[in-house]
Amino acid sequence: MFEARVDVKHLPGIADPQGATVERSLPALGYTNVSEVHIGKLIRLVLDASDEAAARAQVAEMCERLLANPVIEAYEIQISELAS
Amino acid sequence: MFEARVDVKHLPGIADPQGATVERSLPALGYTNVSEVHIGKLIRLVLDASDEAAARAQVAEMCERLLANPVIEAYEIQISELAS
Repeated sequence: MFEARVDVKHLPGIADPQGATVERSLPALGYTNVSEVHIGKLIRLVLDASDEAAARAQVAEMCERLLANPVIEAYEIQISELAS
Repeated sequence: MFEARVDVKHLPGIADPQGATVERSLPALGYTNVSEVHIGKLIRLVLDASDEAAARAQVAEMCERLLANPVIEAYEIQISELAS
């Protein structure tokens, strides 16, 4: 069994309204030293696969089909083997 | 300048409807070997601080006040110094 961790970020140049809203709110709370706020998704899942390469390939395919929107998002996959 | 990366996850026992929806959708796409899908937030930001400890303390305070909901979410902070 493998654990996959996928960071989903907006592609450069794609608007990040959630990050922009947080960034605009921070000065009102007294935080004037913060910039470049980006908010993306962190997906974690467990999958059964024969080896790490197979697990990574399947997660990449799932990202393309369901987990991310490749038109506006980039994804980064980390795979770790779970002790059985 | 420091870069902060905050992983925001649901606390154990708190419903994760987004993760549950994805998990239920996967078998219809042919992925029957996936379980424990969790979807959280990944927040990245840049801040100016005197040292790493100060940066970490400020990000933790921002998490408690704005970035996360400590009643239902846990957060994990990673700080790295940016080359100036």
